[in-house]
Amino acid sequence: MLIKPGKLLATINSPADLRKLPAEQLLEVCQELRQFIIDNVSIYGGHFGASLGVVELTVALHYIFNTPYDQLVWDVGHQAYGHKILTGRRDNFHTNRKYGGLSGFPKRKESEYDTFGVGHSSTSISAALGMAVASEYKHETDRQHIAVIGDGALTAGMAFEALNHAGVTNTNLLVILNDNCMSIDPNVGALKEYLTDITTSRTYNKLRDDVWNILGKISKFGPNAQAIASKVESGIKATLLKQSNLFESLKLRYFGPIDGHDINHLTSVLHDLKDIPGPKLLHCLTVKGKGFALAEKDQTKWHAPGTFDKITGEIYKVHYDTPQPPKYQDVFGHTMVELAEQNSKIMGVTPAMPSGCSLNIMMAAMPDRAFDVGIAEQHAVTFSAGLATQGLIPFCNIYSSFMQRAYDQVIHDVALQNLNVVFCLDRAGFAGADGPTHHGSYDLAYMRCIPNMVVSSPMNESELRNLMYTASQPDMGPFSIRYPRGEGVMPEWRTPLKKIAVGTGRTIQEGEELAILTIGPIGNYVVDVCRNLQKENVKIGHYDMRFAKPLDDKLLHQIAQKYDKIITIEDGCLQGGFGSAILEFMADNNYHLQVKRLGIPDAIIEHGSQLELHRECGFDPAGIEKTVRQILFQAVTV
Amino acid sequence: MLIKPGKLLATINSPADLRKLPAEQLLEVCQELRQFIIDNVSIYGGHFGASLGVVELTVALHYIFNTPYDQLVWDVGHQAYGHKILTGRRDNFHTNRKYGGLSGFPKRKESEYDTFGVGHSSTSISAALGMAVASEYKHETDRQHIAVIGDGALTAGMAFEALNHAGVTNTNLLVILNDNCMSIDPNVGALKEYLTDITTSRTYNKLRDDVWNILGKISKFGPNAQAIASKVESGIKATLLKQSNLFESLKLRYFGPIDGHDINHLTSVLHDLKDIPGPKLLHCLTVKGKGFALAEKDQTKWHAPGTFDKITGEIYKVHYDTPQPPKYQDVFGHTMVELAEQNSKIMGVTPAMPSGCSLNIMMAAMPDRAFDVGIAEQHAVTFSAGLATQGLIPFCNIYSSFMQRAYDQVIHDVALQNLNVVFCLDRAGFAGADGPTHHGSYDLAYMRCIPNMVVSSPMNESELRNLMYTASQPDMGPFSIRYPRGEGVMPEWRTPLKKIAVGTGRTIQEGEELAILTIGPIGNYVVDVCRNLQKENVKIGHYDMRFAKPLDDKLLHQIAQKYDKIITIEDGCLQGGFGSAILEFMADNNYHLQVKRLGIPDAIIEHGSQLELHRECGFDPAGIEKTVRQILFQAVTV
Repeated sequence: MLIKPGKLLATINSPADLRKLPAEQLLEVCQELRQFIIDNVSIYGGHFGASLGVVELTVALHYIFNTPYDQLVWDVGHQAYGHKILTGRRDNFHTNRKYGGLSGFPKRKESEYDTFGVGHSSTSISAALGMAVASEYKHETDRQHIAVIGDGALTAGMAFEALNHAGVTNTNLLVILNDNCMSIDPNVGALKEYLTDITTSRTYNKLRDDVWNILGKISKFGPNAQAIASKVESGIKATLLKQSNLFESLKLRYFGPIDGHDINHLTSVLHDLKDIPGPKLLHCLTVKGKGFALAEKDQTKWHAPGTFDKITGEIYKVHYDTPQPPKYQDVFGHTMVELAEQNSKIMGVTPAMPSGCSLNIMMAAMPDRAFDVGIAEQHAVTFSAGLATQGLIPFCNIYSSFMQRAYDQVIHDVALQNLNVVFCLDRAGFAGADGPTHHGSYDLAYMRCIPNMVVSSPMNESELRNLMYTASQPDMGPFSIRYPRGEGVMPEWRTPLKKIAVGTGRTIQEGEELAILTIGPIGNYVVDVCRNLQKENVKIGHYDMRFAKPLDDKLLHQIAQKYDKIITIEDGCLQGGFGSAILEFMADNNYHLQVKRLGIPDAIIEHGSQLELHRECGFDPAGIEKTVRQILFQAVTV
Repeated sequence: MLIKPGKLLATINSPADLRKLPAEQLLEVCQELRQFIIDNVSIYGGHFGASLGVVELTVALHYIFNTPYDQLVWDVGHQAYGHKILTGRRDNFHTNRKYGGLSGFPKRKESEYDTFGVGHSSTSISAALGMAVASEYKHETDRQHIAVIGDGALTAGMAFEALNHAGVTNTNLLVILNDNCMSIDPNVGALKEYLTDITTSRTYNKLRDDVWNILGKISKFGPNAQAIASKVESGIKATLLKQSNLFESLKLRYFGPIDGHDINHLTSVLHDLKDIPGPKLLHCLTVKGKGFALAEKDQTKWHAPGTFDKITGEIYKVHYDTPQPPKYQDVFGHTMVELAEQNSKIMGVTPAMPSGCSLNIMMAAMPDRAFDVGIAEQHAVTFSAGLATQGLIPFCNIYSSFMQRAYDQVIHDVALQNLNVVFCLDRAGFAGADGPTHHGSYDLAYMRCIPNMVVSSPMNESELRNLMYTASQPDMGPFSIRYPRGEGVMPEWRTPLKKIAVGTGRTIQEGEELAILTIGPIGNYVVDVCRNLQKENVKIGHYDMRFAKPLDDKLLHQIAQKYDKIITIEDGCLQGGFGSAILEFMADNNYHLQVKRLGIPDAIIEHGSQLELHRECGFDPAGIEKTVRQILFQAVTV
């Protein structure tokens, strides 16, 4: 079903069309654009609040700047739906986040208006500065470069690194601080408080009041005192506003804060800023979810609510008569509380993902033991290392693809010192609709090469609980546990906690001739495949290895001596991953078996449902079964 | 030769001894400590300027704080020689950075005074905050936590992430900003300018002058005006100092700047700060190299000068009669200029390592095309990606172990978008005396799993030049070139630039029965080994594969069909590295050969010379030869 756009929006097939409209019509364009986003997301799902919050900003930017010649970089990209709709993708927008459809994020391959592919936070200033320096080098002095970044994204260190560099350049860089006090969860930290200070003018007002109080006394002293006082005040204010601002400290000219929903004011300010050379920052105040009352009220819930009734605001949920398996993230969240109640050493750490990883459950139950440190993966890991030096056992939960941000800290601050930090890698394997920026494809490879690191993944909820319990035992050293986005397989998941011997796998079923070695929940596909083949009397051995490191040498020797054909399966990259660990074992021990590795190939896999992507890569149940049949029943073709 | 300490220093075997001394003797302790450092480093080498710069700070911190109960974290750790000498390691200090000796950095295994292992920059605030939060949780309210961080290290994003978190805690955290305007090279960026502003009081003085100018006019208006003016000024100043500071913006109480070489003032300020609760920052001004005139004057040169004559300042160099091979980094530096002269698209980027990677050669020759972006690996990579979107070809030079800091940016901003960014990974393989924090052990594994990434390493200088030239050709996509610390093998290294077909290896010599596959300069060991064995008529095939990805399939098929025994050798981790790539090829193509992989085992390898460490890991020439003989002449033992 194609959503019908409003009559003005229907005429806008590119920003050039938008720029033909008189300024008076922009308000209407904003209304139609907002409605189009509501109509679409309510039916097709996707990210919601962020794009509603920047409708006016999106229209104003494309109206004032000469995109795509002027270069616009959206940080993260959750908020770029309006941008996509205005830049030629309106009629295709219902395919957003669907397999084969538009990406949920800006993407260079998709449009020349998408100047930089995003997904992870806080890259926009660096990227836009690179573009701006390139323009300077090419003497394109009229070209503008705009980075739109949220106050949440600004807490990540790389944004600060970029500001530190930008401030000493003379580039045409405009940073738009989209200040809505939110990441996915409410933003945290000192910077957020500072921005709130500016915004509510607490600091400035207090300062001005202080000055007034002092100056007030002058008025007693003669007829001209009032005039002087006024002069003094304006002089001081001008100086203060310039000097006392954090961004001015970093040599960026600071403008604002202004109302990011006032389209007329926005266009007029942006128009003026075009003529001001050098790096500058415009502080815009916006409301996440603007224009949809419920989304304004509960911004975390409405970040990406799924489909909903756009009139009543009822979020659609499928209702089941029987208990359903929980999400892995909720098993993590509840088990954290359970473990922490038993063990006073356990702490929880998340970089800005309390609701995404369900640490919010522990944060509510034990606020002094669970920390949201902001979008700051690097700090989250080294802060955890600091806790661990004091005998505490931090569980640091970071999505697999975001853990890439803290890779050095994992190696340098945790593994080299053999500290007891537990890394819970949510969203490991294909992330689904979020696509390649969010796929947790690489962690088995990048964790496995780190000395001292335990690399594990549970096949189901019970195993996740047991691995978490195991990781919380004394002197475990660095311990990583990866699990995917979405639901598990056990409606009755609250099983008793049991310690697992590190580096031991499980025999799911013994077989003959061919063994399948899996790690993680992908093993559940194999259970189905084995059941199917069993009907034809084909007996496949299935081993849930649980640990990619240390490997279960004893079990592997048994397998290597029993079988001469092996399939390894992992929801992770084939280069250097679990399957390669098995190859290393075989080579090191002089076994010469036929090993077929299934997993994510050496390519960028786009978005889609997890099952669609597993199918694309040949390790959905049908793909696995096909591979088994090829190996068992057909001549091997090289 | 044991260096004789001064008479006071000789009595200090722990900070407790130091704290027994009357304050009047601290100046003498400082003098003796400084001399002891000069005496030692001049003879035994090591890092020099940084430790001289914090002699007074080191003495003051251990004098005032109750270490090790109070916890002191040194950022990076180059500056911790004085700390080591005062904390029980004086008589062992001559073993510093030697194989089996003391580490050049603080290290938890070495001393309880080393609260956190360091080496990479900017981790100290996160780590100390973790300790401080742990103390708060344990109700150790009297415990102090001090992070000493340089102004250079403060430019890295993770320091900012930590400040953002620290500011909203009530922990006993004291950040000491050791402001000497230097990283290894002069510090760069807006923050540095800001700190200079504070220090020279340009901003404050201007502000005060502005206020005075305005207030001056008041004096014309009556007898009490002067008194009022004074009152107004002090009121405004108090407010200003509090509000207009960047650190106060981040909710840390700011103190300073103070002279970091005034031991009496330092101890008195630190004493006062102990009683001020909550997170705070003390801004200390120091001079890198303080007390050794030449080191004060040329701070980059004297960062780690090698051994030298402590009287004349002559840095000892071995003199050769014939031309010697250059350092790989200099081949990089000179070749950059050569390439950039021919190709206007080529740009250079380094995060604070101009002299370390020799990009300073290009920065001097073409200042508009080579950028030092500060200690900011993340920004360096994404800034390079931004340049690449505009058709430029950035060469981003980052040490292998520091590239871990930008892993997400390599994947998310470069590889996913298939941008032409060339990553030159200096210090790949064992770094030598800097030890495990600096060993470039993991890059082959962590780069190889990234789609679109070319992973290469030259065997010699000529090959490095050719790989750089190849990487600068159009549409190469992400391209990584790793090479080690130190000298190559070709005195005549300025060979003509030749394009290499991506994914092709070189046959160094054909052999029989056994083939050795190498990547990188480690192949030169194998040339020697082959020559040795040739004398006994043992003919080993030797193949310099050059690329770990893409592999040279054609060559590998030939090898697999010719030999049944293979040794792979890499100066990198065995888990998931080059050898594993070979195993993957063999498995994917159903070859069942005996493959022995040599490389860095799955363990933390300490410091020592590169050769010592290669020997320890069994891939020095003797170790390689031994493995060859075992495989060829002895029964295989599993």
